Amino acid sequence: MSVQQPPWSPPVRTAEEPVLKLYNSLTRTKTEFVPSSGRHVKWYNCGPTVYDASHMGHARNYVTQDILRRIVSDYFGYDVHFVMNITDIDDKIILRARQNHLVERFREQHKALTPDLLDGILSSWLSYVQSKVSKGLPHGEKPAPGAEQESWPTLVARFQDKSWKQDCLKRDEKFEMHFTAANKTFTAIQSSREALENGQCGEEAAHALVDESRDIIALTLDKEQGSTVTDHSIFRSLSAYWEDQFFQDMRRLRVRDPDTLTRVTEYVPEIVSFVDGIIKNGYAYEDDGSVYFDTRAFDKADTHDYAKLEPWSKGNRELLEEGEGALSVATGRRSAADFALWKASKPGEPSWPSPWGPGRPGWHIECSVMASAVFGDNMDIHSGGIDLAFPHHDNEMAQSEAYHNCSAWVNYFLHTGHLHIEGLKMSKSLKNFITIDEILQRFSARQLRLAFLSQLWNAKVDFSEALMTGEVRSIETMFNNFFTTVKALVSQAQAEGPRLDGTHRYGDAEKELTARLHDAQAAFRAALCDSFNTPEALDVLRELVSRANVYINSRGGALEISVVERIARWTGQMLRMFGLGEGEASPEIGWGQEIAGAGTREEILMPYLRTLSSFRDGVRKVAIAKGDLALGEILALSDRLRDTDLVPLGVALDDQEDGKALVKLVPPAELIRARDEKRAQEQAKAARKAAAVEAERQKKVQKLERGRVPPQELFRPPHVDAGLYSSWSAEGLPLTDREGKELSKNQAKKVKKDWDLQRRLHEEFLAWQKETQ
Amino acid sequence: MSVQQPPWSPPVRTAEEPVLKLYNSLTRTKTEFVPSSGRHVKWYNCGPTVYDASHMGHARNYVTQDILRRIVSDYFGYDVHFVMNITDIDDKIILRARQNHLVERFREQHKALTPDLLDGILSSWLSYVQSKVSKGLPHGEKPAPGAEQESWPTLVARFQDKSWKQDCLKRDEKFEMHFTAANKTFTAIQSSREALENGQCGEEAAHALVDESRDIIALTLDKEQGSTVTDHSIFRSLSAYWEDQFFQDMRRLRVRDPDTLTRVTEYVPEIVSFVDGIIKNGYAYEDDGSVYFDTRAFDKADTHDYAKLEPWSKGNRELLEEGEGALSVATGRRSAADFALWKASKPGEPSWPSPWGPGRPGWHIECSVMASAVFGDNMDIHSGGIDLAFPHHDNEMAQSEAYHNCSAWVNYFLHTGHLHIEGLKMSKSLKNFITIDEILQRFSARQLRLAFLSQLWNAKVDFSEALMTGEVRSIETMFNNFFTTVKALVSQAQAEGPRLDGTHRYGDAEKELTARLHDAQAAFRAALCDSFNTPEALDVLRELVSRANVYINSRGGALEISVVERIARWTGQMLRMFGLGEGEASPEIGWGQEIAGAGTREEILMPYLRTLSSFRDGVRKVAIAKGDLALGEILALSDRLRDTDLVPLGVALDDQEDGKALVKLVPPAELIRARDEKRAQEQAKAARKAAAVEAERQKKVQKLERGRVPPQELFRPPHVDAGLYSSWSAEGLPLTDREGKELSKNQAKKVKKDWDLQRRLHEEFLAWQKETQ
Repeated sequence: MSVQQPPWSPPVRTAEEPVLKLYNSLTRTKTEFVPSSGRHVKWYNCGPTVYDASHMGHARNYVTQDILRRIVSDYFGYDVHFVMNITDIDDKIILRARQNHLVERFREQHKALTPDLLDGILSSWLSYVQSKVSKGLPHGEKPAPGAEQESWPTLVARFQDKSWKQDCLKRDEKFEMHFTAANKTFTAIQSSREALENGQCGEEAAHALVDESRDIIALTLDKEQGSTVTDHSIFRSLSAYWEDQFFQDMRRLRVRDPDTLTRVTEYVPEIVSFVDGIIKNGYAYEDDGSVYFDTRAFDKADTHDYAKLEPWSKGNRELLEEGEGALSVATGRRSAADFALWKASKPGEPSWPSPWGPGRPGWHIECSVMASAVFGDNMDIHSGGIDLAFPHHDNEMAQSEAYHNCSAWVNYFLHTGHLHIEGLKMSKSLKNFITIDEILQRFSARQLRLAFLSQLWNAKVDFSEALMTGEVRSIETMFNNFFTTVKALVSQAQAEGPRLDGTHRYGDAEKELTARLHDAQAAFRAALCDSFNTPEALDVLRELVSRANVYINSRGGALEISVVERIARWTGQMLRMFGLGEGEASPEIGWGQEIAGAGTREEILMPYLRTLSSFRDGVRKVAIAKGDLALGEILALSDRLRDTDLVPLGVALDDQEDGKALVKLVPPAELIRARDEKRAQEQAKAARKAAAVEAERQKKVQKLERGRVPPQELFRPPHVDAGLYSSWSAEGLPLTDREGKELSKNQAKKVKKDWDLQRRLHEEFLAWQKETQ
Repeated sequence: MSVQQPPWSPPVRTAEEPVLKLYNSLTRTKTEFVPSSGRHVKWYNCGPTVYDASHMGHARNYVTQDILRRIVSDYFGYDVHFVMNITDIDDKIILRARQNHLVERFREQHKALTPDLLDGILSSWLSYVQSKVSKGLPHGEKPAPGAEQESWPTLVARFQDKSWKQDCLKRDEKFEMHFTAANKTFTAIQSSREALENGQCGEEAAHALVDESRDIIALTLDKEQGSTVTDHSIFRSLSAYWEDQFFQDMRRLRVRDPDTLTRVTEYVPEIVSFVDGIIKNGYAYEDDGSVYFDTRAFDKADTHDYAKLEPWSKGNRELLEEGEGALSVATGRRSAADFALWKASKPGEPSWPSPWGPGRPGWHIECSVMASAVFGDNMDIHSGGIDLAFPHHDNEMAQSEAYHNCSAWVNYFLHTGHLHIEGLKMSKSLKNFITIDEILQRFSARQLRLAFLSQLWNAKVDFSEALMTGEVRSIETMFNNFFTTVKALVSQAQAEGPRLDGTHRYGDAEKELTARLHDAQAAFRAALCDSFNTPEALDVLRELVSRANVYINSRGGALEISVVERIARWTGQMLRMFGLGEGEASPEIGWGQEIAGAGTREEILMPYLRTLSSFRDGVRKVAIAKGDLALGEILALSDRLRDTDLVPLGVALDDQEDGKALVKLVPPAELIRARDEKRAQEQAKAARKAAAVEAERQKKVQKLERGRVPPQELFRPPHVDAGLYSSWSAEGLPLTDREGKELSKNQAKKVKKDWDLQRRLHEEFLAWQKETQ
């Protein structure tokens, strides 16, 4: 074709796109985010050490990281590979697992309350008081001198002296926690003394004492027998349990699972070879089965810097000691700043083979090895709580850069800020320690997330009652009301169909509101580009909603629904992007499933449950008909299905006489209550029945006991008064009375009758005796 | 603090991000997409003219535009403002509404079958045949001369002459459609004549005739009375009805509603003032109450070009005429290329006041005015079907640039390609016209969307049975199977909890598969950046899934679930991004609803199904261990549960070697197919086995049959030739031969041996006979 299109010029930008900048702990400034490979982002997040229930500190850290991850992947559209570790080798895990195991064993060994048991626990209590509680004594004062020798009443008096306690409280923040533990055991010891004096010395009494003294005897047992614990599975099953709990908590908080999860226990061979590599590169040395990182050698090298995140913390002994763990041995380091890469295991600590003898990994090396195993010698983002910055992250980077001989193992380090509770650091000793399970009973996952979103991710968050019941509730209510209103208006408009009045409603007010939406979209993006400024982004949404509300109220029935609908859609989309879509049926795998919309929970479930039930019916029928050995086991399985497995799922199977069970969906709590009541009734019935049987037996015994006297003895002393009769026949029938006078015919007849009866009773008695021998 | 952090250098990119390029009809090349204002995108899409049911052509166009819109907003993260118009003033609407109205009125006026009514309809029929059907006659041949005067029998004979029809069919593609209409009326007229002769002349008979003649009398009525129709609501209610139907169809196709919807009827004052503005700018002129665009003046202006999209179509009279509409008046234009901005309304056409007298907007001006009303003098993207490029879009641009005095009203023009059905253009006359409602009864919205995704948006799509039942079904099944498997594996892994075996499974195979995922993510992005190359992007997903399947099959129970889970999540996310998340409960407004027990069907069902399955596992285990009589019956029940009861519920139980079944939710139809195939195979196997058994039996019978003859008879006729022997012993052993000569010693020995063998065979034969009685 010879006719050509006219020339076209590329459009002229009237506004530029903002650029994503991140607050990078490596520079302590906001720097432009430049991923090294296109849109692909390598992101490593420090995971938990799993030995106890997750708490608000974990919620703050992991929910916040989840928000950042969602922004980077779902808002900015990067292809993120999110890796997280589980620290399942750690001094805290070793101690907790060992102590749990030893206390449990101790408990099983002590099934009677004995003076020995009591003395042993008393002695543990004394050393606990001396080492922990007495630390609270005023400086200079001597701790309870010769307390062991003191008599019990003296001890009681000293321990209950309140002025002493008041004094201590002022001086040691952990005092109250230790005192509480000591006091609990103290009370238990007192009760057990009394119990022992009253002769109550059974299993129940023994276990009550052990349970109340648990924390205190754990320390003694661990000191005395810790080194005998060698079975790996004792450590591994504790960490596996808490790992499972951790992820359950995270899912309740709507925190996405990591893409890749690495566990230290599964990477030990890689760790050994990594440590070996660092030694070969000249940045580590072995001493007595342990390997230490040579911080001076590393810091001296031209291409390396030690402690890039916090160079000013290099010599901080307290931080360094905390990093090394409670079971560490202080010897063998060339410099105080050096830290363990590999620890020789002492007896009672899990160990793995290595060129330096049996040992276990240091804390920092895990992350270096596992992140390198997945990402190699560089990653875009490393994240974690700010408390990990030094020494953990600095050591991690030093190790990795020493191993890979590279100058930058991490490009951007993102640290989430601290969490305070009502202005104070959260700690068990301050009694403001809150587990995730506890907090979720008071607030929803959405409310918690809103609380964190309303604060900067890298700032200190003060989690307070006022924040939750004030600002957070009010934000939530504002959005809820807006969505409810718009949904109602949209549904009304759709029901009415296209307008017929021949005038459009896209006038100045609507253009103005649309322009505000576009401004909000730009401002929202700018806020997130400004190092994920979520409080600002939330404010943008709130401001927009408030403008939309003004518009709705000012227009009444004449409003243009599409404008507010669009605002509501976009606002909802952004809130869901933040992970606030609670209860949302987000089909993360697959392209969308048929939703429950088509029916109630009951309608969906019933066909399946009926099928399940009739299979069970069939199996029971076969088992009952056969009546052979299979019977018991299969009926037991059927009962367990009914009474144990289906109860928490809210399914009641009522077995009927015709062998077919009736299926019901009932709230689980109700079912559990009904089941427990049924069990209690059955137990009560059984108890009544047992009592009746016993009463019957007693009655029978009493009757039989009447036959114990042989008929020959019946009319002789001591069964009758001495001298009542004066002579007897060979069968023992009385012949003459007290005065030697022959018995009258009537008298003789009566004694004969009694004699005959006794003979019968005695025969029965003898038979019973023989039978019960 | 005086200690400083070491310097940090920005990361070095090892791979750049690809850039989004679009195939722009204004350049006919792929050019980089540069939105003029940050991330904000102004997008106008040409909407439908609403006067009839939406068809496959609409599906192709609007589903494809919806896909592009989702990619731009949900994948590339632009803030799109998507505007669409509804053309509810148009010659087709006027004609259809007027005719419907007149026929309805006519029907109500005729409540009895009278000779007058019949004559009137016959006359309409005759003129229809003359104007439409006879057009099919060979050129030069005169159309049915004096047909009105012909007698009815002559007419019947002529109309039923098949050779005439055959002839016409060859010459006019619309002939068959017209002939069918004529024939329908013809039959109705014949029936009505008979009815009238038989005295059936009630309302029912009259309405039957009117209804069957509807299409034909509409033309006559419109010609005679069209000008009497003046009530606007007659036109408006027709378009409102079809607009409502259109959006219902679109929602069934999962096409998102536009953000802003504009209707021509609601923008007439703005159109009048826009037209006035063009006149004032010197690019339009009035003639006899109509206003025309001055294409020559516009094209001559330095800053303007007329027909930027298709300059070679400038003089195409056929396209221009079609653009002007059936009711247009051909006079008054200064140039043949000029087109109407404003049309003076004739009687029977809706009209609005204007400086040029009562009239109505031309077709092209609507879009110029409404898009300008929302976006002003520039937009980023304009989209529509390729058949609208000239003259509609070229005229639209010319008008807007004339009004705004700007040189580029649209920056990127995106045209969706044509749709063919089985290789042919879709048209009512070709009988391959398919409405959206019809197609959705055969295929799901997801299947249709997959069909369009598997083709380039701007290429011609050939919609065929082969495409839908071949490629599309196979893509859908592949993804379905993959998601089902991964979900089952994930659910199993979660139920099992953390691993305890101390070895990770993120080895070479997993790293390799992860690298493939990252490659796929980059390739997917590159494909979409390459002017939305969705077939390529789909191929990337298919290739990835197929690699994941290979991995799953090769690893068996030792697989690392997180890698395949991540692939499944990402694949699902991308498919949902394309709008394939059918049945997905996407709460577009709000942040997700807290429905009681919210969750997908799957989330609700799985805990119950796992309980059911593990009860079955337990019962089977007992049955297998006992191995007694219970075994067979209980295993049969377990099999029936799996193969019969759970199949229609869409539950697959895959029994594994470890005795635990893997639970999967699968569409029932798929399960039934798999089960039936398995059964057919088993039956075939059983049949083969039965045949082998029968052959064996036959062989045995043949052998036994050899013993039917008692040994005594063996050497007598008819078992040997008569006369072979001449005398026998008592046991039937031959003594002498034919000639009376005694048998030789050897002969005697041989017959004795045969005799002995036969005795044994005969005994076996007798035993078998007795046994089978």
